[in-house]
Amino acid sequence: MNTSVSLKPGERVDALYSSNIRLIQSKQVFCFSLDAVLLAHFIRPNLRHRLLTVDLCAGNGAVGMFIHKKTGGHLVEVELQPELADMAERSVELNGLTDRYQVITGDVKEVYQWVPKDSVDQVLCNPPYFPVTAASRKNPNRHLAIARHEIAIDLETVVDRMSGLLKMNGRGYLVHRPDRLPEILACLTSHRLAPKRIQFIYPKAGSESNMVLIEATKDGRPGGCRIVSPVIVHHQNGEYTPQIKEMLYGKKKTE
Amino acid sequence: MNTSVSLKPGERVDALYSSNIRLIQSKQVFCFSLDAVLLAHFIRPNLRHRLLTVDLCAGNGAVGMFIHKKTGGHLVEVELQPELADMAERSVELNGLTDRYQVITGDVKEVYQWVPKDSVDQVLCNPPYFPVTAASRKNPNRHLAIARHEIAIDLETVVDRMSGLLKMNGRGYLVHRPDRLPEILACLTSHRLAPKRIQFIYPKAGSESNMVLIEATKDGRPGGCRIVSPVIVHHQNGEYTPQIKEMLYGKKKTE
Repeated sequence: MNTSVSLKPGERVDALYSSNIRLIQSKQVFCFSLDAVLLAHFIRPNLRHRLLTVDLCAGNGAVGMFIHKKTGGHLVEVELQPELADMAERSVELNGLTDRYQVITGDVKEVYQWVPKDSVDQVLCNPPYFPVTAASRKNPNRHLAIARHEIAIDLETVVDRMSGLLKMNGRGYLVHRPDRLPEILACLTSHRLAPKRIQFIYPKAGSESNMVLIEATKDGRPGGCRIVSPVIVHHQNGEYTPQIKEMLYGKKKTE
Repeated sequence: MNTSVSLKPGERVDALYSSNIRLIQSKQVFCFSLDAVLLAHFIRPNLRHRLLTVDLCAGNGAVGMFIHKKTGGHLVEVELQPELADMAERSVELNGLTDRYQVITGDVKEVYQWVPKDSVDQVLCNPPYFPVTAASRKNPNRHLAIARHEIAIDLETVVDRMSGLLKMNGRGYLVHRPDRLPEILACLTSHRLAPKRIQFIYPKAGSESNMVLIEATKDGRPGGCRIVSPVIVHHQNGEYTPQIKEMLYGKKKTE
């Protein structure tokens, strides 16, 4: 494994111990959050050698890289913002994954330029969550605003490209906000993606869910949607629950 | 309170202590299940004097009667099967609720014969859960089959009547199976009912959800759907969790 790549001003290297991945991050540009860890954990292992996975709105490449041990074949990370794609590219190098990972700096809307339609086994996406309205307050940092708000791409377009890329019976994975659940499920369904497995994330026991993970099958039959057991993130005292600690630090970490 | 009504062969009187309600039941015809208790618990208190509530597919009247203390005004229970409606009627008497409750023996499809459109503040429904397909195995007991399978009415029709009955901003409450979640949310949305609050029920910690409770607002704005904290029904040893015990026995019961 290549253990040194050059860092740019403001960048640092963080580790996700459970995946044995080191990731270049920058507070000014983008840091992965628990959403990426949860989505990566939610994705089913599939070690098939000829698998093709595409990560849309890939950011600094966190989700795609976090699943490197449980995913076979090749992974393509598509990210619009050059600064983020560049971090992803160097993180791929840093982790010795250049033979399996490709980073594309480009607009998800134009993804068919690089990846053919109906060719992909699984598509992952941690898209911007917040609709843009005249009244919505956006992060004054443009990098963060694009990652969080539907400025450059919206749910409908993300889901359309997810569906377009997938082979029949291919799987789409999405993390999003549950306050938009009815819209998200309707959007998936109208784009030939049948929601098949859903998991809700709750910040604490007794709290409302603040995140939802969804797996959908292209051209899957309607019905048979499984709502798997919930994830609680924090104990009441603010400490991570054992389930989250395992996602972050792996099984053998002693606290 | 009238403390005696006549029971028919096979009938018995069961109590829901938390609501202080006694209910006529019959194994051969219909018994309420935890679904009814959970739906009743999920419904918001509303003690407005002029409130009108309609319970569709009311069975033996369980859900409607369970909320008698937290609901003001009048309640109409609509049940197709005469044997069940008759039990509901006698249970209303047994609990001294005849001045506030009316039981209608009739088809939910024809509900506008008895209750005008756009006149109702809240509509509750614990409908049959299972689609009827050529291959589906139905209960050989016709009473139970009608209560569980979409023989006499299906989701689309139930939701259509729920919406039709409700005033603007009126609330619909539904308990259903989560494997049909995408279809249920789409059906509500297409009938002017915006899902606003959802709760998933899990039989045990670590299990998949087997029940979902949904509150929807007629002509509510899309978005802002809250996924409230989950309910776990049993401990791993099979015992009810404290949350369920409280729903069944009330707060002061000591175990």
